Amino acid sequence: MAIGVKAVPFSLVAHVLAIAGVVMVLVWNIHFRGGLAWESSNKSLIFNIHPVLILIGLIIIGGEAIMSYKSLPLKKEVKKLIHLVLHAIALILGIIGVYAAFKYHNESSIANLYSLHSWLGIGIIVLYGIQWIYGFLVFFYPGGTSAIRNESLPWHALFGLLVFVLAVGNAALGFLEKLTFLENSGLVKFGPEAFLVNFTALVTILYGGFVVLTVLSQAPAEDEYSYASI
Amino acid sequence: MAIGVKAVPFSLVAHVLAIAGVVMVLVWNIHFRGGLAWESSNKSLIFNIHPVLILIGLIIIGGEAIMSYKSLPLKKEVKKLIHLVLHAIALILGIIGVYAAFKYHNESSIANLYSLHSWLGIGIIVLYGIQWIYGFLVFFYPGGTSAIRNESLPWHALFGLLVFVLAVGNAALGFLEKLTFLENSGLVKFGPEAFLVNFTALVTILYGGFVVLTVLSQAPAEDEYSYASI
Repeated sequence: MAIGVKAVPFSLVAHVLAIAGVVMVLVWNIHFRGGLAWESSNKSLIFNIHPVLILIGLIIIGGEAIMSYKSLPLKKEVKKLIHLVLHAIALILGIIGVYAAFKYHNESSIANLYSLHSWLGIGIIVLYGIQWIYGFLVFFYPGGTSAIRNESLPWHALFGLLVFVLAVGNAALGFLEKLTFLENSGLVKFGPEAFLVNFTALVTILYGGFVVLTVLSQAPAEDEYSYASI
Repeated sequence: MAIGVKAVPFSLVAHVLAIAGVVMVLVWNIHFRGGLAWESSNKSLIFNIHPVLILIGLIIIGGEAIMSYKSLPLKKEVKKLIHLVLHAIALILGIIGVYAAFKYHNESSIANLYSLHSWLGIGIIVLYGIQWIYGFLVFFYPGGTSAIRNESLPWHALFGLLVFVLAVGNAALGFLEKLTFLENSGLVKFGPEAFLVNFTALVTILYGGFVVLTVLSQAPAEDEYSYASI
């Protein structure tokens, strides 16, 4: 389903949406929700680490990792290194972000793992980790035979994109779930914070859409090793 | 990003998941939520029309419409007719389903259009309608020039798939939102109804994944007019 247009303009839109998303999630959690803390008697500050690290790490840095093959006019080996390092950072921040949610629940006596968001989140982190390890072993070190690489590459790209889309969808679930809790506790439904959270979710979804469009489009012309064939 | 495997096995898994989804959403709304009604003093029965019509109509029939080109060994013109008729049914059921949510809100004095789910839902219905009208005019009647058709086809397929993925994601948001409301009103978090709703959402997401895999795979060999080239 590759489309015959250039990837770089799509990736530029994605970068702008990424910056907007980072600013919005920080404004929400620092200005409206009181800030971030790993240890605090105000347990909500522990929770606040969760959306910040998941959005900036797993989603945005993960999306940049995905786009690196299509947005950068560099040699294949350099792009591969950028791809795997960015995904490692995304995965580590994602794991810390998930841990923060459990830590908040445990210290606040809230049940774990009852919601669709939590179930999908665990599944996505596990799939993300499997995908990273498989990619590292087959495409980086020690590296599979050329037959295994050729056979694996389209599945690696497709499976990775499915996990990314699931992560974006699950971020939207998380924004909606948290905002619903806040609105049940009295937050105004049409107030500034509610709009900020909903628009952060929309920016996240648009970012996901432009990452997908970037992947389906054509890599920069300078690049001799494009993914265009898959 | 086409993958070199046959589409039919993926579409068969999707059909099974579709049947499971239909059964699950009906059991939830009829057995657990008290049934469906267009007029009732029990306004919840009006709401129940919403998830039933959206899941069965917009998502499941819409997904079958998308897969028809890849799952049926028929002539192109027959498949095109099936495709556009199924999408028309999906869209009409979707519009009635959206209307039921507004009707429930209005008769229960609940605010409209404050949640991410509602915003995305309106956007998706509008995009779905635009996509259907464009497809009808260009590919069916009166039909565009062959240059316009060839230029439009990959974008029609890509845009349609993006709208479908958004619809699946928004269904997950809807299940989570409704279940969160019910749990805030006392529904047991790890009880049978909560599990049923969460698993219905998971089945919906899996259905969406298998529809996407079907689209990216190869149409039946009997078909001389496959989408494989896009």
